[in-house]
Amino acid sequence: MKKIIIGVMGPAAGATLKEINIAFLLGKLIAEQGWVLLTGGRKAGVMDAASKGAKEAGGLTIGILPTAETDAISEAVDIPIITEMQNARNNINVLSSNIVIACGMGAGTASEVALAIKSQKKVILLCDDNVAKAFFKNLGGDNVIIADDPEEVLDISKRIISEQNKA
Amino acid sequence: MKKIIIGVMGPAAGATLKEINIAFLLGKLIAEQGWVLLTGGRKAGVMDAASKGAKEAGGLTIGILPTAETDAISEAVDIPIITEMQNARNNINVLSSNIVIACGMGAGTASEVALAIKSQKKVILLCDDNVAKAFFKNLGGDNVIIADDPEEVLDISKRIISEQNKA
Amino acid sequence: MKKIIIGVMGPAAGATLKEINIAFLLGKLIAEQGWVLLTGGRKAGVMDAASKGAKEAGGLTIGILPTAETDAISEAVDIPIITEMQNARNNINVLSSNIVIACGMGAGTASEVALAIKSQKKVILLCDDNVAKAFFKNLGGDNVIIADDPEEVLDISKRIISEQNKA
Amino acid sequence: MKKIIIGVMGPAAGATLKEINIAFLLGKLIAEQGWVLLTGGRKAGVMDAASKGAKEAGGLTIGILPTAETDAISEAVDIPIITEMQNARNNINVLSSNIVIACGMGAGTASEVALAIKSQKKVILLCDDNVAKAFFKNLGGDNVIIADDPEEVLDISKRIISEQNKA
Repeated sequence: MKKIIIGVMGPAAGATLKEINIAFLLGKLIAEQGWVLLTGGRKAGVMDAASKGAKEAGGLTIGILPTAETDAISEAVDIPIITEMQNARNNINVLSSNIVIACGMGAGTASEVALAIKSQKKVILLCDDNVAKAFFKNLGGDNVIIADDPEEVLDISKRIISEQNKA
Repeated sequence: MKKIIIGVMGPAAGATLKEINIAFLLGKLIAEQGWVLLTGGRKAGVMDAASKGAKEAGGLTIGILPTAETDAISEAVDIPIITEMQNARNNINVLSSNIVIACGMGAGTASEVALAIKSQKKVILLCDDNVAKAFFKNLGGDNVIIADDPEEVLDISKRIISEQNKA
Repeated sequence: MKKIIIGVMGPAAGATLKEINIAFLLGKLIAEQGWVLLTGGRKAGVMDAASKGAKEAGGLTIGILPTAETDAISEAVDIPIITEMQNARNNINVLSSNIVIACGMGAGTASEVALAIKSQKKVILLCDDNVAKAFFKNLGGDNVIIADDPEEVLDISKRIISEQNKA
Repeated sequence: MKKIIIGVMGPAAGATLKEINIAFLLGKLIAEQGWVLLTGGRKAGVMDAASKGAKEAGGLTIGILPTAETDAISEAVDIPIITEMQNARNNINVLSSNIVIACGMGAGTASEVALAIKSQKKVILLCDDNVAKAFFKNLGGDNVIIADDPEEVLDISKRIISEQNKA
């Protein structure tokens, strides 16, 4: 039976401590729902922190890796999918997720949000960047939802998943 | 902790009944070892049968899908990874597998075996096509191992995984 | 000898008449410099118009196509590169361009600008969306340059190409 | 007007001197017909030699590169398309070619021939490996044509292009 997969995207090396902490909590909350966590899989920033949070709650973690370097894989990833496609793998990240959550903002994350909007995916933005929020809200309309904290992300996610299950 | 992922590749619509039955048994044997099964994810031929076998044994199944069509996904796939890359996704299939098992032979499967050899992956061939076996053995040398039945595939796989764990 | 390739990205079906006209002029100006035009290759919007402009000036046009549908290829594309990778091909568009020009804005174009910034490419933005300009300028810093009309795009492009030739 | 694109595939570092010489001649013959040459674009083996042959005859050369390393690009490539997709780019090579010519054989070339057969492309095999010829002829039927020398490749190519133009 097809599992529910929630993607958490965000900065790698450039992630702030606040973003790292939020990503960890998001991973934990996602795993507590029995949902699978999907990230970009690297041992860095938001990807790594969200995966660690999900593992702390006993969840299952998928990482969609840009390269075949085994040293670069987060130790909290259960299922590494090796694409060797560098940033083109960002499209796989969003296509494989029931919901895409952006935790923080950077060029890679922006590409994922844009690709998610292009493919009519639901995107939840959790970041401090008001210009980013205005830009993506313009671009994606109702498919883009702004959240203020991880708990709100969880509430919105539950509602979206419930609607997807009805459809 | 990174799971062991075994890829089973083989014909879709063109699979014979014998190949379907063998694929089902391979999926079951893989799942009984606690290994994750990876296939091309479609509701067809060897991919579908192997996934069903793995689910019968309570295993976890990953499908690397060529398109975003949800109707085309095998119902026995737990984790559908949506690439929208058509046959270019064949490279992801082999890169993400600790071992690549070819069950039967066709153009798609041949591309996967060739890509696996190119990336120095271990490949186990289980097919009746002696020309295919000779061709790929020439091409891949020691990385290509010929097996005669699913039980032999399992024995060879155990040995390879044991060697990979030591390395 | 490696040719200079200029990428022009922009909306497909959603392009405005103004964007279509500007794209045509951009294609023409690029071809008049002896540069090769690269677009997403489809018979739609900015891609099609820029390719037609380049052909009017006798230029060479490359299209990086998302699918294998031959009917969807712009008739003004000389060299169709068929990726069958849908939107993941957007990364190829930017990686293959010496300069990425965004003419108008939409989800696909936004993904291309973000991917270009991620890969440290020079991006010239020619669009009326001030929020988009502020967002990408924040994201890309000096690698993102705002232009007001096609002639300014050409001047900026000449300067960038001249700097790239020195490096 | 869409140009005719002929793909020449073959070993990189492992190419024999004979294969290098044949590849150079193939590139020359292709360019003399006014056709565009497409290769994997690297400065190695068959790709490099075919591109050099095409340039000697004043032709246009496209290279579909696996990485963004500029040092690895053949100097005889006019239009480098940068995929950063490693071997997954092999599918783009064959999809973008009117005809795929295999000059020599190796794991990468085998994946290209298999992917070409999978996508119903015409493939011309020019290699000394009888097992490879038997294998791919079984796999691809009438879409796979065996040639004995570059002149025969040219004759077969002219006939295929003539049939494609009628269709």
